[in-house]
Amino acid sequence: MQKTILILNGPNLNRLGKREPGIYGSETLADLEERLSRKASAMGYAIQAYQSNHEGELIDWIHRAEDEGAAGIIMNPGAFTHYSYAIRDAVAAVDIPFIEVHISNIHARESFRHTSVIAPEALGQIAGFGFLGYEMAMDALDNYRMGRGK
Amino acid sequence: MQKTILILNGPNLNRLGKREPGIYGSETLADLEERLSRKASAMGYAIQAYQSNHEGELIDWIHRAEDEGAAGIIMNPGAFTHYSYAIRDAVAAVDIPFIEVHISNIHARESFRHTSVIAPEALGQIAGFGFLGYEMAMDALDNYRMGRGK
Amino acid sequence: MQKTILILNGPNLNRLGKREPGIYGSETLADLEERLSRKASAMGYAIQAYQSNHEGELIDWIHRAEDEGAAGIIMNPGAFTHYSYAIRDAVAAVDIPFIEVHISNIHARESFRHTSVIAPEALGQIAGFGFLGYEMAMDALDNYRMGRGK
Amino acid sequence: MQKTILILNGPNLNRLGKREPGIYGSETLADLEERLSRKASAMGYAIQAYQSNHEGELIDWIHRAEDEGAAGIIMNPGAFTHYSYAIRDAVAAVDIPFIEVHISNIHARESFRHTSVIAPEALGQIAGFGFLGYEMAMDALDNYRMGRGK
Amino acid sequence: MQKTILILNGPNLNRLGKREPGIYGSETLADLEERLSRKASAMGYAIQAYQSNHEGELIDWIHRAEDEGAAGIIMNPGAFTHYSYAIRDAVAAVDIPFIEVHISNIHARESFRHTSVIAPEALGQIAGFGFLGYEMAMDALDNYRMGRGK
Amino acid sequence: MQKTILILNGPNLNRLGKREPGIYGSETLADLEERLSRKASAMGYAIQAYQSNHEGELIDWIHRAEDEGAAGIIMNPGAFTHYSYAIRDAVAAVDIPFIEVHISNIHARESFRHTSVIAPEALGQIAGFGFLGYEMAMDALDNYRMGRGK
Amino acid sequence: MQKTILILNGPNLNRLGKREPGIYGSETLADLEERLSRKASAMGYAIQAYQSNHEGELIDWIHRAEDEGAAGIIMNPGAFTHYSYAIRDAVAAVDIPFIEVHISNIHARESFRHTSVIAPEALGQIAGFGFLGYEMAMDALDNYRMGRGK
Amino acid sequence: MQKTILILNGPNLNRLGKREPGIYGSETLADLEERLSRKASAMGYAIQAYQSNHEGELIDWIHRAEDEGAAGIIMNPGAFTHYSYAIRDAVAAVDIPFIEVHISNIHARESFRHTSVIAPEALGQIAGFGFLGYEMAMDALDNYRMGRGK
Amino acid sequence: MQKTILILNGPNLNRLGKREPGIYGSETLADLEERLSRKASAMGYAIQAYQSNHEGELIDWIHRAEDEGAAGIIMNPGAFTHYSYAIRDAVAAVDIPFIEVHISNIHARESFRHTSVIAPEALGQIAGFGFLGYEMAMDALDNYRMGRGK
Amino acid sequence: MQKTILILNGPNLNRLGKREPGIYGSETLADLEERLSRKASAMGYAIQAYQSNHEGELIDWIHRAEDEGAAGIIMNPGAFTHYSYAIRDAVAAVDIPFIEVHISNIHARESFRHTSVIAPEALGQIAGFGFLGYEMAMDALDNYRMGRGK
Amino acid sequence: MQKTILILNGPNLNRLGKREPGIYGSETLADLEERLSRKASAMGYAIQAYQSNHEGELIDWIHRAEDEGAAGIIMNPGAFTHYSYAIRDAVAAVDIPFIEVHISNIHARESFRHTSVIAPEALGQIAGFGFLGYEMAMDALDNYRMGRGK
Amino acid sequence: MQKTILILNGPNLNRLGKREPGIYGSETLADLEERLSRKASAMGYAIQAYQSNHEGELIDWIHRAEDEGAAGIIMNPGAFTHYSYAIRDAVAAVDIPFIEVHISNIHARESFRHTSVIAPEALGQIAGFGFLGYEMAMDALDNYRMGRGK
Repeated sequence: MQKTILILNGPNLNRLGKREPGIYGSETLADLEERLSRKASAMGYAIQAYQSNHEGELIDWIHRAEDEGAAGIIMNPGAFTHYSYAIRDAVAAVDIPFIEVHISNIHARESFRHTSVIAPEALGQIAGFGFLGYEMAMDALDNYRMGRGK
Repeated sequence: MQKTILILNGPNLNRLGKREPGIYGSETLADLEERLSRKASAMGYAIQAYQSNHEGELIDWIHRAEDEGAAGIIMNPGAFTHYSYAIRDAVAAVDIPFIEVHISNIHARESFRHTSVIAPEALGQIAGFGFLGYEMAMDALDNYRMGRGK
Repeated sequence: MQKTILILNGPNLNRLGKREPGIYGSETLADLEERLSRKASAMGYAIQAYQSNHEGELIDWIHRAEDEGAAGIIMNPGAFTHYSYAIRDAVAAVDIPFIEVHISNIHARESFRHTSVIAPEALGQIAGFGFLGYEMAMDALDNYRMGRGK
Repeated sequence: MQKTILILNGPNLNRLGKREPGIYGSETLADLEERLSRKASAMGYAIQAYQSNHEGELIDWIHRAEDEGAAGIIMNPGAFTHYSYAIRDAVAAVDIPFIEVHISNIHARESFRHTSVIAPEALGQIAGFGFLGYEMAMDALDNYRMGRGK
Repeated sequence: MQKTILILNGPNLNRLGKREPGIYGSETLADLEERLSRKASAMGYAIQAYQSNHEGELIDWIHRAEDEGAAGIIMNPGAFTHYSYAIRDAVAAVDIPFIEVHISNIHARESFRHTSVIAPEALGQIAGFGFLGYEMAMDALDNYRMGRGK
Repeated sequence: MQKTILILNGPNLNRLGKREPGIYGSETLADLEERLSRKASAMGYAIQAYQSNHEGELIDWIHRAEDEGAAGIIMNPGAFTHYSYAIRDAVAAVDIPFIEVHISNIHARESFRHTSVIAPEALGQIAGFGFLGYEMAMDALDNYRMGRGK
Repeated sequence: MQKTILILNGPNLNRLGKREPGIYGSETLADLEERLSRKASAMGYAIQAYQSNHEGELIDWIHRAEDEGAAGIIMNPGAFTHYSYAIRDAVAAVDIPFIEVHISNIHARESFRHTSVIAPEALGQIAGFGFLGYEMAMDALDNYRMGRGK
Repeated sequence: MQKTILILNGPNLNRLGKREPGIYGSETLADLEERLSRKASAMGYAIQAYQSNHEGELIDWIHRAEDEGAAGIIMNPGAFTHYSYAIRDAVAAVDIPFIEVHISNIHARESFRHTSVIAPEALGQIAGFGFLGYEMAMDALDNYRMGRGK
Repeated sequence: MQKTILILNGPNLNRLGKREPGIYGSETLADLEERLSRKASAMGYAIQAYQSNHEGELIDWIHRAEDEGAAGIIMNPGAFTHYSYAIRDAVAAVDIPFIEVHISNIHARESFRHTSVIAPEALGQIAGFGFLGYEMAMDALDNYRMGRGK
Repeated sequence: MQKTILILNGPNLNRLGKREPGIYGSETLADLEERLSRKASAMGYAIQAYQSNHEGELIDWIHRAEDEGAAGIIMNPGAFTHYSYAIRDAVAAVDIPFIEVHISNIHARESFRHTSVIAPEALGQIAGFGFLGYEMAMDALDNYRMGRGK
Repeated sequence: MQKTILILNGPNLNRLGKREPGIYGSETLADLEERLSRKASAMGYAIQAYQSNHEGELIDWIHRAEDEGAAGIIMNPGAFTHYSYAIRDAVAAVDIPFIEVHISNIHARESFRHTSVIAPEALGQIAGFGFLGYEMAMDALDNYRMGRGK
Repeated sequence: MQKTILILNGPNLNRLGKREPGIYGSETLADLEERLSRKASAMGYAIQAYQSNHEGELIDWIHRAEDEGAAGIIMNPGAFTHYSYAIRDAVAAVDIPFIEVHISNIHARESFRHTSVIAPEALGQIAGFGFLGYEMAMDALDNYRMGRGK
C-alpha cells in the first residue's frame, strides 16, 4: 500500500500568487499541491496537503499524521517558523521524519526571519528555491527512508 | 455603493468592560462596535466588526477583506501585537490600507508592550485614547483614501 | 452546590503517554483527568478538563470560566508558556485564582523554557513533579480559597 | 476665555516641505500651523505654535505652558523622541495633558526610531498620518478634557 | 527506622513574620518548622530544619545530609537562588533528591528573581504558595521516593 | 580673596517645589541657592549658582568656571546625567574638581537612571539626600582642596 | 539614651591602609572607626562598627541592628555591592534607614562596579570621598531622622 | 559546450569519512565528488571540485569561477559559514548564482552554527541531508538557470 | 563667485589647546580656523567656521548652509557624534555633501566613542589625524564636487 | 627557612572522590593535599592546605597569607570563580603571586563556567588537567619566583 | 634613500572595477596602484603594493614591512576589518605607523561593517572617499612622520 | 619508536622577542622550540614545531598530525583563539589529545580575549606562564597518555 506524505503549509500561504509576488512568485497554492501530487505519484507515494492560518490546526494535523502512519511531514511553517514553540514540540512529539521548507531565502530577509525555532527538530531545512524546494524535500525524505529500510 | 471598513479586535477584547477597567474602561465591545457603526454611517461607510481570540481567525478575516474589496482594516491586535509575525505577514499580503489601534498607551506599560511586530506593515499606529482611537483611525483611513483618489 | 475547577492543558499534552515518555511519563491525558476527577470529588469539587492545541480555545475557556463562576483555573500551557502574551492577558482579565503547572522541570531544560510569560499573573507555579503537580495545585487552590473565606 | 493648546515641533521640523518629502510630505511648517489654527478656532481653542531645534527651548516652553495655564501640549519631538530624557522629565514635571505625534510611521523606519523615551509620560502616541495626526491629537485632547470636566 | 528530610532555609528567612509581611506573611520560621514537623510525623518521616544567612553553612548542611543518609532536601535558598552557583554545585554533588521552594511567586516579582541558577539541579520548583509550598514539597518528595521503591 | 564654587543645576530643576514633590520635595530652587549661599559664606567661599534646561549652556558655564578660576563645580545634571557625553567631555576638559549630586536616589528609580555617563569624570557622586546632598558636596569639595593644599 | 548607628564594612576593608593605597588611601580601618566614633559622640550618637569578609555575618548584623533598635545602618558592602541580593533583601527586611558608602568612585572604575544591587533599598549612595563619605552619611542619617521627628 | 559548476568544500571537509562519522557519515570527499560528477554528466554539466582549509583559496576560486564563466557555485563553507565575511563579499562580488549546502542540520547543533553570514548572498540554503544536499543544489541551480533562459 | 564650505565644530572644541592636550594637541581652535581659511583660499573656496556647545545651534547652522547654498559641510560633532540623532536628521534634511571629522582616533578610545549615529548620513568619516583631518576633508569634498561637475 | 605555598580549595571540593567522579575523578581532597605536600618538599617548599565552602573564610585565608609571608597562593575557587568579586578583590589586595586552577576544563562545560571574575588578578589560569593542574601551578609559581630572584 | 610605504589591499579588492561598481566604482586595482605610485614619487616615497585574499599573507607582509624598514602601512583590510583579530595583532606587533582605509563609507552600510577590530591599533581611519582615501592616507602618514622628525 | 608531539604556534608568534616584549617576553620562537625540543628528548618524545600566520596551514597540520600518528597537539592559536571555528572543527575532527596554551594571561587582557572558541575541544587550557606553559602542556599531555596506557 502507498505511503502518504503530509504537506503542511502555514499562515498566509493560501495567498500564494496574490501575496507579494516579488518574493513568493505568481503560482498559487493549488498549483503547488498539484505539482507535488504528480511528483508523489511518480515516486510511489500519495500526499495529503493542508494549509492553515491556525497554529492549532497545524499541530492537530501533525498529531494525526502519526496516528495515520504517515511516511513523513514536509512543512512550510510560514511566520510560525520564528516563534511557535508549540509546533516545535508537536514535531518532536511524533515519530515521523520532518523537513522544513521555505519558498524564499529567509536567511537573506529581515533578521527576525533568520532563526527557526522549529528547525532543531527537523531532519533538515531547505530555503530559497520556490516551489522546487518542496520537491527537493520529497526526494530527501524518500532518500532518508530508504537509508533506514522503511 | 458603500465601501466597508473591517474592524478587527484581537484576544481578550471581548472582555472589554469586564477586563481591568482601570486600564481599558468600563464600556463593552458592543458599545464600541455600535459607536463605530454610527460614525461609519455618518462618513458614508459600512463597517464589519469581528473579535477573535484566535490568531488564525484574524488572519482569515484579513484575507477575506481583500477578497471582498474592503476599503481598509482597523485592527487592535491585543497581545498578538507583540509576537504575531503571522498577522504581520497577513497585513503585508493584502493590498488594503491598515491602521493599528490600542486602547491604552502601550508605550507606558510593561516593556514587552513597547514593541509592535505588526506596525512596520501599518499606515500608522494610534495608542492611548480609548475607544476614540478607533474613530480617529476611521478619519485617518478616509483621509488616506481621499489622498489617493479612491 | 459544588464549585468547579477548570483544568486546562495546552498544546501537545493530548499526546501524553505517546510523547517523549522519558520527559513526560507513560500515562495518558485520560489517566490524568480521571485521577484529578477522583481527587476533586474527595475534596468536594467538580472539575472540567479540556485540552487544546489552539491558543484561542484556551483563551475562550479562561473567559468562560469566569462567566460560569469557576473556583479556579489550573493550567499547563505547554509551549505557550514561553510566548503567549494573549493567554497572560486572558488570566489577567478574569477574576479567578490561577495556578501554572508543568509536568517536567522546565527550569532544567532548554533555556527558552526557563521563562514563563504567563506566571506573572499566576498565584504560583509548580514544575517537575509529573501528574502529581496538578494535584498539588488543587490543594494549593483549595487552601488559597479557604484563606479568603470563599 | 479661550483655552490655549501648545503645539511644539522639535528639531528639523522647520524644514518641512524641504526635508525628505518622500517621508514628510511637501507642505511646510507654516501650512501645518495655519491648518491647526483653523481647526482650533472651530473647536473653541487658541493655539500657540513653536518650533525649535534646541532641546532646552522645548523644555522651557513646556514649563511655560504650565505657568500660563495651557489646556494641553501636542508635541512632535522629532529625533529627541529617541534620547531626550530631559524632555521626558519636563512633561512629567508639568500637570498638563500631553500627546506625542509623529508625521511618519516611526515604527516602520530604522530600529532606533521604534522606541520613544518620552511616550511613557504621554496620554498617547499617534504616528504615521502626516499633518492629520496633529488634528487627531487635538480631538483626542479635547475629548480627554471633556471626560475630566475641564 | 525513620528517614529524615532536611529542611533548609536561606538568607533572611529567619525574619519571617517580621520581614515584609505583605510578601511573606505573618507567621514565623518557628511556626513553619513546627508545621512541617507535624506533617512529617504523620507521613512517617523526621525532619531536620536549619536556617542560615551563610551560603557556606547551607553547603555544609547539604553535604552532611548525604553523609547522614537523608531521604531528601527541601530548600528555600532565598536570594541565593539567583546567584549561588556554589549551592547549585552542592546539590549536584550529593545523591539526594532535592526540591526548591519559594514562599512568594518569584516569577511575578523583580526580573532578577525570575531565574534560578539552582533549579537545573532540582527535581522541581514550587513558588507562590506560602508555607504550604514546603508541605507540597514533602508530598512530592515522598511520592518520588515511592516511585523509586526507596 | 574668596574662592568661588560653581553650583549648576540641569534641566527641570527650575521646577523644584512644583515638580513631582513626592520625589523632589516642596522647596524651590531659590530656597536651595539661598541655603547653599549661607553655607558657603560660613565656609569662606562664594557661590555662583546657575540653572539651565540647555545642555550647551551648562557646558559654557563649565568652561567659564575654568577661565574664572573656580574652586570647584557641584552639578546636578538632571536627566542629562544619563546621555550627555558632551557634558562629560566638558568636565574632563577643565581642570577643576567636580562633584555630581542628585536629589533623589537615582539607583532606586527607573533602570535608565541607574547609569551616569558623567560620573566617570567626577570626584564622586552623592544621590538620595535631597538638598542636603549639595551641602555634603560642598564639604567634600573643601576637604578635597585642603588635602591638596589649595 | 544615646541611639546607636551601625557601621558595617564588607570584604577586604579590613585591609585598608595595606590594600591598593592608590585607590583606598593609607589610613586603616581602626583609624576610620576611631574617626567615626569621635564624630558620633559630637553628634550625640554611639556607633557599633563591624567588618566582615563573610556575607552571612553582614546579614546577621543587619538583623541584629533591628532587634537592638539601631538608629541607622551605614554600610560599605565592598564587592558584595555588585552581586549580593541576600544583603539587599536583608536591608529591605529591616525597618532601619540605610545608607550605602564607597571610599572610591565606583562609577569611574571597572564596569562591573557601576551597578549596585543593594542601592535600590538605600536612602542614598555616597561614592568617591574616602573616609569622609562615612561622616557625610552620618550627617545625612541624622538629618533624615530629624526630618521624621525621631 | 558544457557549462561548468564549481563545487567548493571548505575547512575540514577533506576529512569526510574520518571526521565525526556520527555527524558527517562515513563516505569520503572523493566519494562525494565522484557522485556529483556522475550526476553532472547526466544533467549535461561538468563540475570542478575543490576543497580547501584556506579561506583565501576559496575566495580565489570564487573569483576564478567568474573569469571562467562558471554556471554556478555550490559551496559548503564549513565553519567559515559562521564568520567569513570575506567569503560573503566574494560571492557578492561575482555575478554567478550561488547555493549554500551543509551536510548536517546546522540549525540543530551548537548555537554558533545557527547563523550563516554568507547565506544573505545565496539563492538559498540546504542543510541536513548529507551528500544528497549537493545533488539537490545541482537540481536547484539548473532549475534557476532554466527559469532565466541561460 | 567663490563657493563657501561650512566648518562646524561641536561641544568642547572651543577648548582646543587647553583640553586634554595629550589627546587633542596644543593648537587652538583659532589656529585651526586660520589654517583652514588659508587652505580654502588656495583651493578657491571661502570658509565659514563656527563652533558651538549647543546641539540646536549646530542644527540651525546646517539648515542655514542649505539656504545660503554652501558647497559642503565639514563637521566635527564632538561628543554629539555618539547620540545626537537630531544632528543626523539635520544633515539628512539638507542636500549638501557632508564629511565627518574627528581629531583623535575615536575607534581606539572608550567603546561609546566607536559608534557614530551621524556617519550613516555622511560621504565619509576621517578620524585620528589631528587638524590635518579637516584639510583632508576639504580635499575630499572638492574632489567629490568635481566628480559631480559642480 | 622554607617558604610556604597556600593551597586553597573552594566550595564542594571537600566532596572530591564522592562528587560527580565522571567530571572530577575518584581521588579525594586528602589524596590531593598529600600529593602536593610531597611535591612541595621535593621543591623545597612547605604547603598550607585549606578547603572551605565559605567565601569569607577563603578571603580570610588570602589575607592571612600575606601576613604570614606566603610565597604564593594556588587556588581552585570552585563555583566562586564565576561570581565572587569579593575573592577577586582579596587577591588584588594582597601582594602575593596567585594562580587559578580548575580540575575540569571549565571552558568546555556550561557557559556560565567559561568566565572567571577572579582570573584578571591572577598570574595565569590552568584548567582541565585534574590534580596535576595543582602541581603544574606549583612549578609555575616557583618559576615565577625564580625569575624575580625571590 | 627613498622610504617605502606598504599598500595592502585585502580580500576581494582584486575585483575592483568588476565588483559591485555602485559601491566600489569602476576603476581597477591596477589603476589604484598606478595612481598611488605616481603620488608617492611626487612625495619622495616608493610604494610596495600587494593584494591578497589570504589573511595570513597580509600578516606576513605586515611583518616583512618591519624587517625591511617600511615608513608606514596603508591597508584596506576589506571584510577582515570586522573579525581579523590576527591582523590587529600583526599591526600591534610591528613598530610602523598604520592607517586604515575603506573605499566606501562602512559606517553607512550593514551594521556588521560599522565596527573595525583593527582600527584600535591604527593612527586613524578614513572611509568613504574612494581611491582618494588612499592618497589622503599617504598625506597623513607623511605628515605624521614629519611631526616625529623621521 | 619515539612518539611525536606537534607544537603549533599561530599568527604573530613568529615575532616573539620583537612583538610587545612587555606582554610576550624577549625570547624568540627559535628559543622556544629549542627549549621544547630539549624537554621532549628528556621525556622520550620528539617534537615537530611549526608556526604559521595562515589559519588554513594550521588546519592542514592538525590533519597531518592524525595521518602521521602524532601523540598529541600543543597549540597556541594566537588571535585565532577568539574566532576560528574552523580550527575548532579541525581539532574536533582528529582523534588526538589537544592542549591550548597562551603565553600571556588572556583572561586579564581585552575582553575579546577572554573567550576561546577552540577550548571546548581541548583537554585543557594553560594561560599566563610564558614559555613554561608549553612545557607544562607537555607534562600534562604525557600524564594524560599514561593514564590511558598509550
